[in-house]
Amino acid sequence: MKVVEDQLFVIIGASGDLTARKLIPALFALYVRKLLPEHFAVLGVSRTAHTTEHYRQSLRKALEGIPEGRAGGDRLDGFMKLIYYLPLETSDPQCYGDLGKRLAELGEQYQTSGNCIFYLATPPVLFGRVAGNLHTAGLTRHPSGWRRIIVEKPFGYDLQSARSINRQLLDCFPEDQIYRIDHYLGKETVQNIMVTRFSNGIFEPLWNRNYVNHVEITSAENLGVENRGGYYDGSGALRDMLQNHLLQLMAMVAMEPPTRISANAIRNETLKVLQSVRPLRLPEVEKQVIRGQYTGSSYRGKQYISYRQEKGVRADSHTETYVAVKLFIDNWRWGQVPFYIRTGKRLPARVTEIVVHFRPTPHKLFCFDEGRFNADNQLVIRIQPDEGLLLKLGMKVPGAGFNVQDVNLDFHYADLVREPLPEAYQRLIVDCMQGDATLFTRGDAIEQSWDIVDPILRAWADNPDIPLHGYPAGTWGPAQADSLIEGESYTWRYPCRNLVDDGLYCEL
Amino acid sequence: MKVVEDQLFVIIGASGDLTARKLIPALFALYVRKLLPEHFAVLGVSRTAHTTEHYRQSLRKALEGIPEGRAGGDRLDGFMKLIYYLPLETSDPQCYGDLGKRLAELGEQYQTSGNCIFYLATPPVLFGRVAGNLHTAGLTRHPSGWRRIIVEKPFGYDLQSARSINRQLLDCFPEDQIYRIDHYLGKETVQNIMVTRFSNGIFEPLWNRNYVNHVEITSAENLGVENRGGYYDGSGALRDMLQNHLLQLMAMVAMEPPTRISANAIRNETLKVLQSVRPLRLPEVEKQVIRGQYTGSSYRGKQYISYRQEKGVRADSHTETYVAVKLFIDNWRWGQVPFYIRTGKRLPARVTEIVVHFRPTPHKLFCFDEGRFNADNQLVIRIQPDEGLLLKLGMKVPGAGFNVQDVNLDFHYADLVREPLPEAYQRLIVDCMQGDATLFTRGDAIEQSWDIVDPILRAWADNPDIPLHGYPAGTWGPAQADSLIEGESYTWRYPCRNLVDDGLYCEL
Repeated sequence: MKVVEDQLFVIIGASGDLTARKLIPALFALYVRKLLPEHFAVLGVSRTAHTTEHYRQSLRKALEGIPEGRAGGDRLDGFMKLIYYLPLETSDPQCYGDLGKRLAELGEQYQTSGNCIFYLATPPVLFGRVAGNLHTAGLTRHPSGWRRIIVEKPFGYDLQSARSINRQLLDCFPEDQIYRIDHYLGKETVQNIMVTRFSNGIFEPLWNRNYVNHVEITSAENLGVENRGGYYDGSGALRDMLQNHLLQLMAMVAMEPPTRISANAIRNETLKVLQSVRPLRLPEVEKQVIRGQYTGSSYRGKQYISYRQEKGVRADSHTETYVAVKLFIDNWRWGQVPFYIRTGKRLPARVTEIVVHFRPTPHKLFCFDEGRFNADNQLVIRIQPDEGLLLKLGMKVPGAGFNVQDVNLDFHYADLVREPLPEAYQRLIVDCMQGDATLFTRGDAIEQSWDIVDPILRAWADNPDIPLHGYPAGTWGPAQADSLIEGESYTWRYPCRNLVDDGLYCEL
Repeated sequence: MKVVEDQLFVIIGASGDLTARKLIPALFALYVRKLLPEHFAVLGVSRTAHTTEHYRQSLRKALEGIPEGRAGGDRLDGFMKLIYYLPLETSDPQCYGDLGKRLAELGEQYQTSGNCIFYLATPPVLFGRVAGNLHTAGLTRHPSGWRRIIVEKPFGYDLQSARSINRQLLDCFPEDQIYRIDHYLGKETVQNIMVTRFSNGIFEPLWNRNYVNHVEITSAENLGVENRGGYYDGSGALRDMLQNHLLQLMAMVAMEPPTRISANAIRNETLKVLQSVRPLRLPEVEKQVIRGQYTGSSYRGKQYISYRQEKGVRADSHTETYVAVKLFIDNWRWGQVPFYIRTGKRLPARVTEIVVHFRPTPHKLFCFDEGRFNADNQLVIRIQPDEGLLLKLGMKVPGAGFNVQDVNLDFHYADLVREPLPEAYQRLIVDCMQGDATLFTRGDAIEQSWDIVDPILRAWADNPDIPLHGYPAGTWGPAQADSLIEGESYTWRYPCRNLVDDGLYCEL
């Protein structure tokens, strides 16, 4: 177990939503689980004119609004004492002298040896400027301790802007001090992809073009854009989900075994996958990418407005709320194996899963129960909800003859651990506190995934006649996405037809 | 679905235990399930001086003693009407004219076109004589119908006697009219070995010396010899279980894919496995075979007598009630992969299972939870009870780091079918009625498996100083059997430590 050294945790942009909703609850949970260092304090920084007392009160109120906080009792008081506030014009370099002074004071008071994490909870447009200001004020290094910076997505808007953000950050911090959060990588089930693949002797021999027919990655949301219409309309499904989370998932599934479990060994391998993705030019975009936008509809007795009617969305918006892509990874392991990736809003359920479809047997010896067996084995890695693993096998139908039906070998994380799985933010914050960057995205990987996505964005921008398909709420996106899948008898897996009925997934 | 042609079913030795306990219940179950042909009758034959009426009454009584019979109601009356009896000195050729006459009458009455199965429920020593008598009386063939003969194990006592029985049978019936029952092959789960292997694309690539470390086959009984002491003392575990059932299981696990699902295609492949077993000479017998005999003991508060105190057993008996063997199959698929096979009486539970131990990963990337993960994947094929499949995998321990623990992906037949799995005898009788010999043992395979076992029998007979280890009731046999298993950290799988507690297995 790595040691968490004494340190300060500075949140820049501390009066925003992310802090109250994610960061502080995660820090409080770590406090309760005794995973914080012995000497530790939080300094909130933003332009709002709070006092520390005010700030503590507002956070306490936020924490009391969630179950962990309500159950907190005395521990809530203890945790609140670790929190400080400093009002600061974050975009003004002049003010960073004050920040430095406060850091020195708190460092002295808490004996944190100069160690400090800066968590940038600001809009991404400010990343460069804040990093620059920290740098100019001499806060990005310390004679006796370390300095780290955590940034949140989106990392750019396209390849050019991502490069620009990276350059600005790297002007101020070396790569190994920069922690870019992709909260998908903080999920237990995402990390378990690597453990499943590389701690079991039986998967790796099958995990290649000889035995895998294709791979599906689905991330479906049942919600619409909710109150994020303004932001989302300038982004869309491709930027918001596929460029980051889903390409990361693909890289975890497709990577070569790393030389060891270390940040750079793993990130070198995932980068190689992204580098091997066959580039999409306009003809490929037209054939291998399907975009959609949800339309107004009624589903299970409820009315849903169309995307264009959502608050903050332009009435003639061409932003996609659904995207499905067929990619190829041109390397020795995956040559000619299609990777199908889709994500969308207002789909029938909230579910993220990866399906590895193995090839059928080369010789069909048995009869198959009609309509029950599509003759291929599938390994379903359920990222969320109902985290676990499912292996679909053929087995004998009891009775005369040798008929085959499919059965599921199933594993649910819930059967293993009684408590809910550790929350992604907690895991990632502890990792950063320990200096473990394994589950953070490296700058080169971010640029590489923008490099995959950029031609799609450009094709859409330059060719308004590429169709944007409408799909009613509660469907699995535009019907055209089905035609992406090669081979007769193959379709997308519709994971939750039963699960919705079983109440496992949230319904739309 | 194959058709069951109209036919007569003749049981020779019909007043014995097997008929009342197994055959008639199986035929009645087939009657209830409407799997018998439209025109059908049973003729019981033995030296006992029953009338048909008497015989029916005795069988009705036997059936009423089992649940299916008690629930039978009217159907029991209907079934009883199909049963006839003929008293006959089965060893006397003179009497077979009467049998021929009765067959002709019943054939006329039931319109069975001369089709007839002879089921030999006699002691094996009579197989040759009965077959010869049938042959001499001209009953082994019919101008307009078919004739088949079913025989029960034991097929001989050693290689020589097995050859002699085969020769006698083949003098009277061609091989394709002879159905040798190995009731293990009638078990759903045994047939499912083939379906699992050859209907799933993911197993066959792993099913060889490159990925399999070793294979274990265990058939444990919690009972002692019960009232079979006299028979058993002349047989022993090697002859009674290993020579037939367990070598058949091994052959199913190790066989090459058959060209098709047909009796000869499958039996050609299982024969090849038996032919490839590396012969055991005296030095190998000394090293690779462990024999044991249960001793008197007290287990879970109950007293058990020793084998030598059992009724019918010689007081100085050297008959083994436990045997463990390490075999090699010298072919391209299995070269150097040990197959460990063990069977015994008075073990802690009644369980038959096959464990395919896959090799560990070539590179250990992760930490393992202490004592919880022995670093290899296992596929456990549970033959009985709790029929099903279990795949042991490594998965991530939730929380920080990348620790691995083992979890089970589990499939129980009981979750698939509400009723109990079809009973082996029913399946095998219907197969024979249909002329499907797939699940019956061919003569060459029987001789081949005696050829494997014979050197062990001879070594024991010629070298009384080869140890016969005592083991107390309720243990997993002699401790010496553990040393058979190659490689540090490998042991036999003790399948039921938990399951006994869970009540799934019968305790000793």
